[in-house]
Amino acid sequence: MGKGRLEAFSDGVLAIVITIMVLEMKVPHGDSLDVLKPLFPIWISYILSFVNVGIYWNNHHHMLHAAKQVNGKVLWANTHLLFWLSMFPFVTGWMGENHFTKWPVILYGFISLMCGIAYYLLALALCSVHGKDSLITKTVLADKKGIVSIVIYLAGIGLCFINPWLGFSTYVLVAIMWFMPDKFIERSLNES
Amino acid sequence: MGKGRLEAFSDGVLAIVITIMVLEMKVPHGDSLDVLKPLFPIWISYILSFVNVGIYWNNHHHMLHAAKQVNGKVLWANTHLLFWLSMFPFVTGWMGENHFTKWPVILYGFISLMCGIAYYLLALALCSVHGKDSLITKTVLADKKGIVSIVIYLAGIGLCFINPWLGFSTYVLVAIMWFMPDKFIERSLNES
Amino acid sequence: MGKGRLEAFSDGVLAIVITIMVLEMKVPHGDSLDVLKPLFPIWISYILSFVNVGIYWNNHHHMLHAAKQVNGKVLWANTHLLFWLSMFPFVTGWMGENHFTKWPVILYGFISLMCGIAYYLLALALCSVHGKDSLITKTVLADKKGIVSIVIYLAGIGLCFINPWLGFSTYVLVAIMWFMPDKFIERSLNES
Amino acid sequence: MGKGRLEAFSDGVLAIVITIMVLEMKVPHGDSLDVLKPLFPIWISYILSFVNVGIYWNNHHHMLHAAKQVNGKVLWANTHLLFWLSMFPFVTGWMGENHFTKWPVILYGFISLMCGIAYYLLALALCSVHGKDSLITKTVLADKKGIVSIVIYLAGIGLCFINPWLGFSTYVLVAIMWFMPDKFIERSLNES
Repeated sequence: MGKGRLEAFSDGVLAIVITIMVLEMKVPHGDSLDVLKPLFPIWISYILSFVNVGIYWNNHHHMLHAAKQVNGKVLWANTHLLFWLSMFPFVTGWMGENHFTKWPVILYGFISLMCGIAYYLLALALCSVHGKDSLITKTVLADKKGIVSIVIYLAGIGLCFINPWLGFSTYVLVAIMWFMPDKFIERSLNES
Repeated sequence: MGKGRLEAFSDGVLAIVITIMVLEMKVPHGDSLDVLKPLFPIWISYILSFVNVGIYWNNHHHMLHAAKQVNGKVLWANTHLLFWLSMFPFVTGWMGENHFTKWPVILYGFISLMCGIAYYLLALALCSVHGKDSLITKTVLADKKGIVSIVIYLAGIGLCFINPWLGFSTYVLVAIMWFMPDKFIERSLNES
Repeated sequence: MGKGRLEAFSDGVLAIVITIMVLEMKVPHGDSLDVLKPLFPIWISYILSFVNVGIYWNNHHHMLHAAKQVNGKVLWANTHLLFWLSMFPFVTGWMGENHFTKWPVILYGFISLMCGIAYYLLALALCSVHGKDSLITKTVLADKKGIVSIVIYLAGIGLCFINPWLGFSTYVLVAIMWFMPDKFIERSLNES
Repeated sequence: MGKGRLEAFSDGVLAIVITIMVLEMKVPHGDSLDVLKPLFPIWISYILSFVNVGIYWNNHHHMLHAAKQVNGKVLWANTHLLFWLSMFPFVTGWMGENHFTKWPVILYGFISLMCGIAYYLLALALCSVHGKDSLITKTVLADKKGIVSIVIYLAGIGLCFINPWLGFSTYVLVAIMWFMPDKFIERSLNES
């Protein structure tokens, strides 16, 4: 089964998710700079989600580039990931409109956590297709970022009960961690 | 005539349908967990529709993978299917906002039924292009799921007049049935 | 210059145009069949626009399939066509919400007319790239439907001043005309 | 690393950005020509943005066509560009609804400026991948339009403090400048 349409469909969903989030920034009434102020937290929230979805697209791109084949299990693991990613516009809007108060930040963390888990399940599904000696399995096993993200998101959700800004900061931390170029993956792929 | 753009256009429409459904979950005012409660039925409705559109994308992927050529009739059968699938965001929102009462659940079933019929017509159009000895025709004839879905949807619509939850349960049943891996199709394709 | 990305971008825009039109059908309050009644004219309007955009996608598919190369002029003629097609969600909503009264039906006809003209300009741009002895030029010259559509739309707009339903009927007529399989085009393409 | 999915994802985002802008033109109540009048400035604003996004898509198409490879830096420079382009629907709506008054026109110019800078950074990232003797580097260095646009946008933002229409006119000027066919780029590409 070809991976081409899986990539195309995922690209489509990710492109739409990343773009419709901007619809949560409703055009305000009035033409002064003051009317933009209430939108500022939504914009910050939008930037974090844009970066997060961008990271998922980037990683998805790399992981499927290394994949040689897909099966029904991979298709459904991928759909499961897209489901949780499709929740980003909602939690982005809720967190931004409420200026990063407790429950919206917790829900944002929960959706981020579920995306992290879903991505990991997709990685495992791809590994099981390719066998344990394949390049993709070695890369997935060597890459600890996925597991680390899940742990940090869990910690971030806990920190929200002390102060939601602590939780939000940990989500930013995860984004920065992924943003760093992963020399290992690129090197492995180049050697293949 | 190439099937590439037919797949690309269908992927695009399906990706948009599956993603804009989330816009029916309007960001609520207030930042407590309580404000999320009224959204819970919409979310359940969204999950069912996400799974349904995911199933259609998955089956469409498989069926067109087995197709070798398309003609004008196939293009229009495909557009007809996309039309009914494009109704999902509307019926998902209506069913969810009204907490699964009679008419919204009936309309949801009706749209699901029309999608099932449209998919079957697309399958027939593809069979008529490839001839009755082709792999795709044999696969379509051997696969009883499409017909079974149509019958269950009809039954589900009828059950809504007794209790809409009975109807809703039958729609979930159809989704679960499709979710099951169809060993036959995969085997047939692998043998080709 | 490759035509692949032109097709991909056009597919994307057309897929979004055809799908976001459904957002004009706002989910109504209430769960009775009565609340659906005011949506019925919007739905009729939506069906016509879905068919129209489907026809454009279908024709665009055929025409670019026959094209061997594109240049900057073709890219801009294509963007011009997409601009007028992107107006469909707006005029669909306005015509449907106002139950096919005069000005909304006229505006719908005007946008349809501009799409027809833009499509014709795209055809001419493609002809000028391929030269007058090319298959695509012969096909475009032999196909009178484009010109006929433009004339009927002009007549339809005029008829709206007598009765908007007359105008609306002529738009439906154009859609039916395009819906008919064009044996000539398919034969020409098959011979190439 | 293949550039195919980068192009596909960018096409997707650009197609959605260019299309959802039309959602800012809300269907008005009433069916007279008068109710369309307040939408006229939004439509003008929409046309400028449609042309701008069309220009970015066109240039992106050309630049990536000349690219032979991409790396992680290019992926992120591209995501950065898409971020600023995704702001167009918001500033288009704000500028149009407020009839081109000072701050909305300034913000529109600021977003246009950031897109211009982001595009230039993407060009530099692509040059650094291909080396200074590559065709793409020579083309980027020879093309002064990118730098000129940035300077004109800066001037336009300044002119808004005198009269926002002066600023708006300079933005239109940039669009016209890009619209002109660039013989140099096409010639360079043809020679390669």
